This record gives sequence, C-alpha cells and structure tokens, in this order.
Amino acid sequence: MAKSQHYQAALAGYEAHKQAKLNLDLTRGKPSPAQLDLSNALDGILDGFYLLQDGTDVRNYGGLTGIPEARALGGALVGAPADQVLAGGNSSLTLMYQYLAMMMRVWRPTGGEPVKFLCQVPGYDRHFTICEQLGIDMICVPLLPEGPDMASIEALVQADPAIKGIWCVPRYSNPTGHTYSSEAVAAFASLGNKAGDNFRIMWDNAYAMHHLTDQPPALDDLLGKAAQAGCEHQVAVFGSTSKITFAGGGVAFFASSKANLAAFERFLGAQVIGFDKVNQLRHVALLRNGDGIAEHLKKHQRLLKPKFDLVEQKLHQGLAGKGLASWTKPDGGYFVSLDTKPGLAGRVVALAAAAGVKLTPAGATFPYGKDPEDKNIRIAPSYPPLEEVGKAMEVLVSCVALASAEQASDN
Amino acid sequence: MAKSQHYQAALAGYEAHKQAKLNLDLTRGKPSPAQLDLSNALDGILDGFYLLQDGTDVRNYGGLTGIPEARALGGALVGAPADQVLAGGNSSLTLMYQYLAMMMRVWRPTGGEPVKFLCQVPGYDRHFTICEQLGIDMICVPLLPEGPDMASIEALVQADPAIKGIWCVPRYSNPTGHTYSSEAVAAFASLGNKAGDNFRIMWDNAYAMHHLTDQPPALDDLLGKAAQAGCEHQVAVFGSTSKITFAGGGVAFFASSKANLAAFERFLGAQVIGFDKVNQLRHVALLRNGDGIAEHLKKHQRLLKPKFDLVEQKLHQGLAGKGLASWTKPDGGYFVSLDTKPGLAGRVVALAAAAGVKLTPAGATFPYGKDPEDKNIRIAPSYPPLEEVGKAMEVLVSCVALASAEQASDN
Repeated sequence: MAKSQHYQAALAGYEAHKQAKLNLDLTRGKPSPAQLDLSNALDGILDGFYLLQDGTDVRNYGGLTGIPEARALGGALVGAPADQVLAGGNSSLTLMYQYLAMMMRVWRPTGGEPVKFLCQVPGYDRHFTICEQLGIDMICVPLLPEGPDMASIEALVQADPAIKGIWCVPRYSNPTGHTYSSEAVAAFASLGNKAGDNFRIMWDNAYAMHHLTDQPPALDDLLGKAAQAGCEHQVAVFGSTSKITFAGGGVAFFASSKANLAAFERFLGAQVIGFDKVNQLRHVALLRNGDGIAEHLKKHQRLLKPKFDLVEQKLHQGLAGKGLASWTKPDGGYFVSLDTKPGLAGRVVALAAAAGVKLTPAGATFPYGKDPEDKNIRIAPSYPPLEEVGKAMEVLVSCVALASAEQASDN
Repeated sequence: MAKSQHYQAALAGYEAHKQAKLNLDLTRGKPSPAQLDLSNALDGILDGFYLLQDGTDVRNYGGLTGIPEARALGGALVGAPADQVLAGGNSSLTLMYQYLAMMMRVWRPTGGEPVKFLCQVPGYDRHFTICEQLGIDMICVPLLPEGPDMASIEALVQADPAIKGIWCVPRYSNPTGHTYSSEAVAAFASLGNKAGDNFRIMWDNAYAMHHLTDQPPALDDLLGKAAQAGCEHQVAVFGSTSKITFAGGGVAFFASSKANLAAFERFLGAQVIGFDKVNQLRHVALLRNGDGIAEHLKKHQRLLKPKFDLVEQKLHQGLAGKGLASWTKPDGGYFVSLDTKPGLAGRVVALAAAAGVKLTPAGATFPYGKDPEDKNIRIAPSYPPLEEVGKAMEVLVSCVALASAEQASDN
C-alpha cells in the first residue's frame, strides 16, 4: 500500500538518524561562544577609571535609576529619552517581574477577583511563567504576521475590565520573528484610552536591533506615539544587552513615562540600593551609543545569519510543498517558529529527543504550556555550531515526516 | 544663673561650628574611595578566561544558584557548606526581599490576618522598610550587648503564632556593633522548635568578617547548630561582598537548608534566568577563599580603625562623665550607636544639619522610623576622610551639649 510504503520510508529516514546517537540541542535562545567572544573586552575595559563625568563613583552604593550614560545607551536601544529610562541589573526578566509585582498591588490590593492578561500566541514561555507565579490569568490572542489582531484585543479589553495588560514582543517576536506593523503600533499607542488608566502594555523589545538583514522592517516608536495619544503611562518598555554582550552579565533597561519611572523607583527602593553601576559603565565603554550597538550587532549578524539560512534551507528541502508543516523566515531575533499538522508537535519533539535532538517542549510557547492544537515548535539555532544546526534540522525534518506518516496511517 | 551660663557656653560652642559652614556627611555606611581602591583589580582580573573548571561559560545564561566557586566563597564568608549557598547578584537586600516575598505566599496565601515580625532595636532601617512594603507588622525587641533578650523572644513567639520571623544582624550589629553571645546563638538555634515550622530567622551576617580588631569576638555557627537542633530550615543566612569589594558591584549570598535553597531557587526561577556569573568569577579570582577574604579585610581594617578610634576619642573628650550620652565601641562593622538623653535625638540631628553635618535621621534605627524615646543616633564614619570625621564629631558633640542644655533650661 502506498500509505504504508510512505510510512516505511519515513521510519527508515528517522531510524537512520537515530542510529547516529546524536546529542544536539536547539532548545534555548543562547548566544554561541563566538558571539560572546565579541564582547570579551568588557572585562578590563575600564582600565582603572571608575568615575563618571559628574563625579559619581560607580563602585559605591546608590543611584537606583542607573548611571546617566547607561540610561542614554538603553534609550538608544529601546527608543526612549534617557530621562525616561532605568538602567538595571543583568536581567530584564527580573525588571518585568518586579514591575508586575508592583502593579499587582494596584490591581489587587486586597485580594478579590483575579487579574487577567492577554498573551499573544505563540509567545515567550517566561512571560507566561511570571503570570502564573503572580496569579494572573492568561487569555490567548493569536499573533499574525503584522502583529496581533488589534480589533479583537480592543473588543476584549473593553468587554472585561479585569484584563489589566498584554505581553508584546514587538520586533522579531519570540518565537515567530514577526514585527508589528505601523498600524498595530498605532492601535497599541491609543489602546490605553480604551483599556483604562491601570492597563499596562508590557513591551518586551528584547530584539530591538537584532537584525538578520541589512533592510530590517521598521518598528514604530510606541512610547512616543502613546505620549501623543495621552497613553504614555500605560506603556512599559523593556530591553537588555543580554543578546548583545554577555547573556548572563549584561544590563537591562526599563522605559516608561517619568511618573511611572518614579513610581517604579519608589517600589524598587525597598529591595535594591542600586544596580551594578560598574557593569553599566563597562557597557557604555564598549557600546558607546546607538551606532555602537548597531555596529556590534552587525558582527552578531554575520555569525547568526548562516544558521538561520541553514534552518530555512533544511526545512525547505525536507518539507516544502508537502503540506506537512509551515514555518517562519525571520528577519531578526533568535527563533524560527514551525507549525506541524495539528496534534503532532508533542510527538515530533518526543521523536527528536529519542534521536538525540533536544527541542523546546511542545506547548512551551503557549500559556500554561498548553498548545490547543499541539502544532507549534520553537527552533533556536543560535547556540550550536553550524554543522550541528544542519544535522539537528535534518533530524527534525525526519521527525515531522515520520509523525505525519504515523498520523496518516492512523486515519 | 549657672544653668543659663551652661546653656550660653553650649550655644557659643555650637555657633562657632555653625559659622564654619561645613558640609559633612555621616549618614550611611559607605566604603571610602580608598577602601574601594583595594579592589580595583576586579575589572580585568579574568584576563579573557571566562570558563569554569567544569566547562561552564560564565558569560552565558543559566545556573540560578551561582557558580560553584562563588558558592564556596560565600560559604567561607557566612559559614555554610557550599552546596547550601546561593551566590546571587549585587545585593543581599534584594535576596532578603525576595526571600520574604516568597515566604509571604506561605504565611498569607489568601490574605487574612497580617504577619508579624520581631525587630531588634536599634536596628537596620532597610530591614524595616522591607517589612513595611510587604505589609508585615513589626514588634520591637531590645538588643542588648550580648544579643537580644532570648527569654522574651521565646515568650513572644510562643504567645502569638502570627509572629513569623525575626531580623538579626548577629555580628557587629547595625548600628550598635554588638555581637551575639554563644548563649544567644544557641537559643536561636532551637528557636524554631518553639516558634513553628514556618518561622524564619533572617540572619543578616553583613559584617561577618569585618573586624576592627585582631582579637574579634567569636560568633557561633547558627546554621550548624540549628541543624543539630532540627531547626535548620528555619534559618535564612545572608551576606555579601558589598563592604569587601565594590559596594555597588559585589556578590550577595543566601544560605539555608538544602530544601530551603531548592524552594528559593524554584521561586526565583520565575524572575531570574541566572545572576551575573562573570562578576562572581571576578570575585573568586580576587578573594579566592576565606583566608583571602580575611587578608583583604585586614586592609580595610587599617583604613577604618583610625576613623572609629577618632569617633571614640571625640565622644570621650566631649561627653564622657557628663551624663549626657552613652555610646558603643564596636569591634567591627560600620557604625557607632549614640544614645542621647530621651527626647533629644531629633533635636541633635536637626542642630547638626543646620551646622552642615548630615546624620542618619533620628528614628531611622526603629521600625516605622519612630524611636519611642527619641534618643538613638547612628554614626557612620567610614566614608569621609579622617579629618572630616573628626570635625563632624566635634559638631555632633556640640549639638548633644546644646540640646542637653536646652532641655535642662526647659526643666
């Protein structure tokens, strides 16, 4: 029978990979050692000079919003005036958590009904984990290539005042790589007028300048447009150098209205005397300004582009025109999003694991780890060497083929 | 009249200082630039080597409990096995806040009656601020030279199950400089048996090895003794290198039972991917181990001792035998605690401010900023140059004399 022959061929292809006893990992968006090497000058870059122009000694305590030079650098990265930026520690995730922990005291000061958040799907698992820990209920909204469906978001927030915010990765979204259109950003800029004063747009601009092409898609300035619409204080922007310098030893940024920044500073004051200003100064010395960041990220692009090209090539060679899967071709960021036929993502990830290729768990890109169609798989090709990316993608393709053939045999 | 002459003399002494238009600051326990210089080698110390012996790349993401080498260093500092230590970011205050935020979910999962904490007084204002922000009610217990009155603490926790913890600075307590006796530590070690499973001793060992003398008072090992008493999980130890290397760019530590460490790691996992391992490795390279810390702190001692000696000298010269004030003579740490006659601390601080000498606000060493007797003043002599410490102390002495004379005139 043709179906069975097809299945046997898929199984043989998969088994051949399995016998190679591979140990490959495409799970997380980590920079490769070669990318990290680009910033090795960080340690020692200060050459014994620890004073700022204004006389501040970066070695000592104090200065909760960060050094002015780092605030300007963060402003250049995420698109905000320096005096609306907080330069923090090594983790924007921590700033996001702290910001929402602060807002929970506003949203739910004495318990009561749970707060709800809109989460674009597929999306970033760590955003969802923050909501779970803080007890924020999550509602999925699909992310389209031009950004989320703004009409449905506007309808949702107007219908349910318990919805207090939304997670966004506006550029090179994790995992799809999509960038929000001008229309989407414009709708977000005035969303606060429909959603209420205490609504917050969590704008995680993690890949603000992380292009894989020399003609990157434009991303409009949400904070500026929101200010024009009178909604600046409903916008909380986050960014970091984690994927520019050292993933674990970078500088994180928060930007919002001056009033929001002041409120956040008051809240943080109970738990932080000041962030690591020495490391902030190191980053200023290495990256200097927006041009310096762009120049530095060009070097990353040269290392990352071949890996993304290879992912595309292997997916195209193995799956194009077969109706078994669709996938994104990002112009930046760290991920490719692959959709199998419904019901197969978990099976594909399990098959890959059995063949020695670790993938992000199926479902991780959805709140509560539950992909309702069980079809989305996040591919993170940045860390492994090029040849391992190629090998892992061949295995993944064979797993999609086998899982699809299994499904067809069952039907 | 004698009383009036006395007042006039005190006023003249004070006014003479006031005319000098000083601008001196004894407010906070900040290391001086010379102390910070002792660690200038930190930046550049890695010389391009970012790999650990186990192959971990400290530049990349991951490793929530910190690098093994830093955990061992923290263990040597606060007295704990390396596998019971978390090496964190630049702030032990943040770890304390996060730990209590986690415990609040255990203590008060769904609202209800407020949690209460015992706070030794005089004590550290930032501990009190954490409680205020988390909504923890504070109960004062007096700190005696040998540690707190353990009998009264035991009675309190047995009488009121809403008391869920106690703040301790067991060595060179902020601000008195007292070190807990063996008896006090022994009582703390088994306090958990009286106070219940969810009680926590917040053991802020901020000045664990920060001696001003070569014969420092012993401090017993609380974590070890608590383990013997079956109360290890009721102990949360904190420490940091903030006053060893760079005040704003050091490494903080948490130590407790392995089960507590695992629970804290799970909680932190929602807000941190990993702390700055690059900076942890820098600290290991500079300080190496317990002996290295001790050696490094000897250099601090040489810079700090003359300042503390001068504080004692000026207080003795100006106030000894007059019945106007009492003060501590610490063997370590960062502070001297001065008690005026009741009702005068606020007046003394205001007089000093008017004469250009900034002091920690009166009341800051008590919960809610309220010293019921209005008598305690914290003196922080570490930051200013020696001559400024002397000058500021002369002003302070003149303020105590004037405020006392004012009070005597009123009576």
